[in-house]
Amino acid sequence: MSRPQTPEQPLDAQGDSSPHRRVEDSGEGTQNSHRMLGFSDALLSIIATVMILPVTHTEISPEQQFDKSIQKLLATRIAVYLMTFLIVTVAWAAHTRLFQVVGKIDDTLALLNLACMMTITLLPYTFSLMVTFPDVPLGIFLFCVCVITIGTVQALIVGYAFHFPHLLNPRIQCSAHRALSRQHILRLVLRGPALCLVAAVFSLFFYPMSYLLMVTIIFLPHVSKATSWCKVRLMGRQEPPARSVEPFSFDLHAPLSKERVEAFSDGVYAIVATLLILDICEDNVPDPKDVQEQFHGSLVAALGAHGPQFLAYFGSFATVGLLWFAHHSLFLHVRKATQAMGLLNTLSLAFVGGLPLAYQQTSAFAQQPRDELERVRVSCAIIFFAGIFQFAIWTAALLRQAETLQPSVQFGGQEHAFMFAKLALYPCASLLAFAATCLLSRFSTAIFHLMQISVPFAFLLLRLLMRLALAGLRALQGLRPAHPVPSQAEAEAQSQLLPASC
Amino acid sequence: MSRPQTPEQPLDAQGDSSPHRRVEDSGEGTQNSHRMLGFSDALLSIIATVMILPVTHTEISPEQQFDKSIQKLLATRIAVYLMTFLIVTVAWAAHTRLFQVVGKIDDTLALLNLACMMTITLLPYTFSLMVTFPDVPLGIFLFCVCVITIGTVQALIVGYAFHFPHLLNPRIQCSAHRALSRQHILRLVLRGPALCLVAAVFSLFFYPMSYLLMVTIIFLPHVSKATSWCKVRLMGRQEPPARSVEPFSFDLHAPLSKERVEAFSDGVYAIVATLLILDICEDNVPDPKDVQEQFHGSLVAALGAHGPQFLAYFGSFATVGLLWFAHHSLFLHVRKATQAMGLLNTLSLAFVGGLPLAYQQTSAFAQQPRDELERVRVSCAIIFFAGIFQFAIWTAALLRQAETLQPSVQFGGQEHAFMFAKLALYPCASLLAFAATCLLSRFSTAIFHLMQISVPFAFLLLRLLMRLALAGLRALQGLRPAHPVPSQAEAEAQSQLLPASC
Repeated sequence: MSRPQTPEQPLDAQGDSSPHRRVEDSGEGTQNSHRMLGFSDALLSIIATVMILPVTHTEISPEQQFDKSIQKLLATRIAVYLMTFLIVTVAWAAHTRLFQVVGKIDDTLALLNLACMMTITLLPYTFSLMVTFPDVPLGIFLFCVCVITIGTVQALIVGYAFHFPHLLNPRIQCSAHRALSRQHILRLVLRGPALCLVAAVFSLFFYPMSYLLMVTIIFLPHVSKATSWCKVRLMGRQEPPARSVEPFSFDLHAPLSKERVEAFSDGVYAIVATLLILDICEDNVPDPKDVQEQFHGSLVAALGAHGPQFLAYFGSFATVGLLWFAHHSLFLHVRKATQAMGLLNTLSLAFVGGLPLAYQQTSAFAQQPRDELERVRVSCAIIFFAGIFQFAIWTAALLRQAETLQPSVQFGGQEHAFMFAKLALYPCASLLAFAATCLLSRFSTAIFHLMQISVPFAFLLLRLLMRLALAGLRALQGLRPAHPVPSQAEAEAQSQLLPASC
Repeated sequence: MSRPQTPEQPLDAQGDSSPHRRVEDSGEGTQNSHRMLGFSDALLSIIATVMILPVTHTEISPEQQFDKSIQKLLATRIAVYLMTFLIVTVAWAAHTRLFQVVGKIDDTLALLNLACMMTITLLPYTFSLMVTFPDVPLGIFLFCVCVITIGTVQALIVGYAFHFPHLLNPRIQCSAHRALSRQHILRLVLRGPALCLVAAVFSLFFYPMSYLLMVTIIFLPHVSKATSWCKVRLMGRQEPPARSVEPFSFDLHAPLSKERVEAFSDGVYAIVATLLILDICEDNVPDPKDVQEQFHGSLVAALGAHGPQFLAYFGSFATVGLLWFAHHSLFLHVRKATQAMGLLNTLSLAFVGGLPLAYQQTSAFAQQPRDELERVRVSCAIIFFAGIFQFAIWTAALLRQAETLQPSVQFGGQEHAFMFAKLALYPCASLLAFAATCLLSRFSTAIFHLMQISVPFAFLLLRLLMRLALAGLRALQGLRPAHPVPSQAEAEAQSQLLPASC
């Protein structure tokens, strides 16, 4: 990987200070931000997925599974997971926008970023507390204080970066309206925290207002876009936001740093893929005493009792790994990511997080037919949604393909059909499995395992399968009744639809 | 980040197949391996640190802390953590060497790599099982099968890459002895697994031999280096290994991919920094029923009961974050990493993994003076070792500074003293705290917290502190009795030792 490095100051053998060096003192220690942003993405992906743990650790013994309170507990935990995942992803998106403004970093910014990270790590806990104690002011108060602290640290970062303009993104640095940009960015960074401040005050005497204010924060970007759209309609053409503050325009087509999306996604995929092995390593090493007493010294039997967990892990790792593979294949051909693609990516990742639980459930109750069907269907649904949102990322990219995609995967490109196949494989397979369970409900587990085993092979042989499919399509076309010889233009259009080199 | 992309095939609007495209079919789908390797590093860092979880989850109530069996359990778990960490790091190092041979990847290699990752994730569990049941053949057998499977998949990767030479590292691709290189690499990749195969066979009838064989694997590289050194001494000068297979020469000065070291280290730092917040999010959200019954409805009191865990988390995050910051500062100026630096990095990371436990212990038993002292000392020791091994990385780099470091941090460079200060800060602070606890043992917790709070500020103000220190040094030099005017060369040498621009 060739990373652009800050050109080093020429070595002065005598080490004497000189006027020009003092002036460039502020240039000392300027660093490329790439590694720090990768580290931040790793931290944020861990924090985003942290609330999966209570979900997968919800103990549901076979007798308890129809217990309404257990189902309610599980549903609450899943809801908390989804909400904290979305909240942390919003914080991550804000962080990416912030560091599209800040081009380079120095030591102080790196330390400020660590402080920002520490405050973001407290979001899931404070949110969880607030949800568990909705009518206690302290819960709301702590969550709001968390958001305010994050906003303060980010404002400090913005202020520091503008104080040393060589740290800024070149576009903003060279812009004529730097002070205006700074105001605009600070306003956007502090908007949410300001609302939270008001919400925190309200929590002391009228907490429903606090919740209302906090909900407003989530819809604020969209509300402000809607109001500016109305203004344009009423008052005529409005000047679009300066390119330098484009990341802050909350436009669905505004650019999003592709590397950050990949790094954050990789973090989430890695954590979800290994989620179940963490529990296996911790809990499933049999105790020698238990092996002696319960299994009469047979380690094989003791391990066999944990068989379902291993099956769940292999299935989970394989599915998450292949979804990562599809994501990786897609982003190799993405030139530029947009906010819409980022949003769809977030939704896909949220469903990916549900896979360990799904596999846990399908492997645990394989013996009881009635629940087996339901669990297999839920697992198929989760896989379907994780895959279809990935497919939607590509669709969103195709809508603006000249900007966002490389030529080979655009309409008519060489790799277009192959990319389609890669991204459609999991949605189709899971849909097929779901439909099969409607027809052959008795064999639902077998169908599910069949799908699990065949999809990896399908990925391996995808190019071959596609050539067969396309050859089949062409054969069908050839079998159609004779029709007038197509004009040159028609022939060109036809061959564009069927990339022959596959 | 500018990542080198594979140049895309020129778009042929008609999509017709042509002879030149069929020939280049093997070039289709060739991709840059950077993202896949980053994902692999994320997975491997999770797996390397997985066995910290049982360590931090060892419940030690105040009454139990002097229970010998609990201490033994904790010691065993710590030993298992250290050994699995080292084993997975060896697997990670082998993976980096493998992908220094493979330059580019395609879909099949990406899928083979996923399979390789899945088998590596089973290492901690099988090792843990083997250690828990040392005399049961199944334990040894499963661990050996795991290693053999890893070796098989890696051999498949090597075979595939050599079958499609455009995927190879350019140096090997253009080398005249490609077949020899392939043999050499396959031999090194399969050496360990072959020994494990023999060990697995022996486990069925004479298991002590299996352990002996497995221990041999660890020392094999060093043994083979020692034998080749003896050969050189006895038989005269031997041809050094071809540059193309240098990563496989196990020479301490062989190159190690700097980006992989950074990515793996970032993964470990991120996981260790957030380890305690995972438990806080899962366990420390008070149950409304408990708050009502035990704390009479006071949420503040309920949260206060968990105070020590929060303190432990903040301290842990701050320390790990700052150690990451020092690591980041160092590697910004590293041109090329060597195997020696990689080894010292591994040792530093292993101690970093011990920090959450250390902080847990220091915050939990703050009330009992006798244990407080011991725990504070252990924490200081862990921080010291984590920091000193980082310092040792830089020292190892300085020994070959022309190759490994950028000019500004070499001896006499501008940033040399500053880098020294950054890397020496934690070792010195922890050593100072340790010494202070010997003198003022009653205030050991206060000393520890003082160190925790002051080190971040020291990092922020480091440049200022250094200027003060150097000004002080110069003042002391000025106070020395008058001596003959130094010659020009002496004056130059002196000013090299005191970089004035700090």
